[in-house]
Amino acid sequence: FQKMESELLTMNQLPAETKDGKLIHLKANIEVKEEVDSVLSHGADGIGLFRSEFLFFRSGDIPSEEEQLETYSQILEMLKGKPVTIRTLDVGGDKLIPKVTGGYEEKNPLLGWRAIRFGLHEKKLLKAQLRALLRSSIFGTLRIMFPMVSGIEELDAVLEILKEVKEELRAEKISFKEDVPVGIMIEVPSAALTSDILAKKVDFFSIGTNDLIQYTIAIDRGNEKVAHMYEPFHLGVLRLVKLVVENAHKEGIPVSMCGEMAGDALASVILLGLGLDEFSMSSFGIPRIKKIIRSVSILEAQELVGTIMEMKSFKDVDKYTTAYMEEKFGIKSFK
Amino acid sequence: FQKMESELLTMNQLPAETKDGKLIHLKANIEVKEEVDSVLSHGADGIGLFRSEFLFFRSGDIPSEEEQLETYSQILEMLKGKPVTIRTLDVGGDKLIPKVTGGYEEKNPLLGWRAIRFGLHEKKLLKAQLRALLRSSIFGTLRIMFPMVSGIEELDAVLEILKEVKEELRAEKISFKEDVPVGIMIEVPSAALTSDILAKKVDFFSIGTNDLIQYTIAIDRGNEKVAHMYEPFHLGVLRLVKLVVENAHKEGIPVSMCGEMAGDALASVILLGLGLDEFSMSSFGIPRIKKIIRSVSILEAQELVGTIMEMKSFKDVDKYTTAYMEEKFGIKSFK
Ligand SMILES: [Mg+2]
Ligand SMILES: [Mg+2]
Repeated sequence: FQKMESELLTMNQLPAETKDGKLIHLKANIEVKEEVDSVLSHGADGIGLFRSEFLFFRSGDIPSEEEQLETYSQILEMLKGKPVTIRTLDVGGDKLIPKVTGGYEEKNPLLGWRAIRFGLHEKKLLKAQLRALLRSSIFGTLRIMFPMVSGIEELDAVLEILKEVKEELRAEKISFKEDVPVGIMIEVPSAALTSDILAKKVDFFSIGTNDLIQYTIAIDRGNEKVAHMYEPFHLGVLRLVKLVVENAHKEGIPVSMCGEMAGDALASVILLGLGLDEFSMSSFGIPRIKKIIRSVSILEAQELVGTIMEMKSFKDVDKYTTAYMEEKFGIKSFK
Repeated sequence: FQKMESELLTMNQLPAETKDGKLIHLKANIEVKEEVDSVLSHGADGIGLFRSEFLFFRSGDIPSEEEQLETYSQILEMLKGKPVTIRTLDVGGDKLIPKVTGGYEEKNPLLGWRAIRFGLHEKKLLKAQLRALLRSSIFGTLRIMFPMVSGIEELDAVLEILKEVKEELRAEKISFKEDVPVGIMIEVPSAALTSDILAKKVDFFSIGTNDLIQYTIAIDRGNEKVAHMYEPFHLGVLRLVKLVVENAHKEGIPVSMCGEMAGDALASVILLGLGLDEFSMSSFGIPRIKKIIRSVSILEAQELVGTIMEMKSFKDVDKYTTAYMEEKFGIKSFK
């Protein structure tokens, strides 16, 4: 155990660089600012996903602009210049806050009024959050991210609101960084399928595999009757991820992944081979993934991807990859 | 009105052939056998989708193999050799039959235990239906279609069951046509994305746009808060349809469309240009679509598709297509 601990501590000082020199950013997903200590102690290169909705869950109500500003600034300061990606309110679906989302009942909440759909309707709320975010930007390295964008119409609408908020702040002579990078989650199939168009308008993508997989295979993984169909290695999913990365890189923007798949050791070499630039996960998972990344080359990873993309069934992909990872990294079980 | 009536009657005698000679099959969607008269009087080339679940709805219970055989045979006989595509039980989602699906409550039924997922679990029920279907095949031109197949694993499982049923019938010396074509609905994004693989194992595809659009854009169109996002002209949807047609044609199998989009006059030239071979819709819509098909060439349709596929927003596609169709067919409003 002590040996493992010291190995991890050493690992924290090293970059997540492949054998052939590609630097991968390994970042942490967090929900509350109390997690920042763990983020730093596990050697994260920043926060890849701060789920701002937990600010709303905590109070069970809508936090004021000032309250939000305080939390965002604190986190940015604690990260001492390392990048912090804050996602705007991602409520609805399975994340209900009665005082925020109201009592609207839905037959299929996962296909319903959630995330940016809610934000585009409750503009005052979205604007207050964007004001708080922009105002916090002077305290560190902020990136703003919008969830569940389904296509160019929603993206344009959201960017227009951001522009308005910036104009308001300028008019009020409130300072903020003009060049805060703006990105979107890619978690709706239609966004992945039109990512060539979306890539021209944002600074980064972050693939949200949990939702992307659910929509692509048309399953709710919280439903025990179909949960077994949730499959990150479904060729339909892998092909979408590949497409998103290719489209992003054509426009010169980086791609992160912030779903559970990003922290899955079994998937890590595949994700490298698919071209992902950044993985964001629970901070505890970072040292393990870093170790794997430092042990392979992008070339090897691309070879693995080349092989599995020719397979037809995710069962074959799973079997082959498990054997590959066991042989290469001596890890007996990944699950 | 009389002029229109007689025009429609004349139309019934004519094939749905484009100006440059591509013959399109225009077929009808039905739910009960009482609709067959209307199918024939509107000049349908057959039934493109018989929703067999209505047999189950009617009785509110599971009809026996013999009861099913009777209905299927009657429909096949009434169609006098014209092809009849019967879809296996598509329950679950928004189609609940307590005595069939049980009292299983789901948070997101559209992403839940439905269609072939239900059938693969309730094998006895699926097998009884396949027995009835195969036995009915000697009464006409049957095609069997499976709903909601999400990938090769489910398809293999379903084809294995079909094989077993055929073996049982052979052992029992019950006659059926050995070469009944077998197809699948393409309505889950992962199926569309892996349609190259699926096309090698079936005789036809039928694109179910209602569900495909819902999953691709991640919306429940029955939900008033997001229903406005249901958009057949979303580039993500059009690209998926294009991909499915290309993959099918590479394997030499035809592609039908049986969602509402197939009966939408505004979409008809686009669908021709995308390469669809067959449209299935409410029988009342057939004469109108036939008239449009007979007025254009595939070349013109491909030109329209070439133009709209370069557009970024469905608003632009909608505007352009509306103007195009008005100018070409003098139809003022399509909605
Ligand atoms: Mg999500
Ligand atoms: Mg369906």
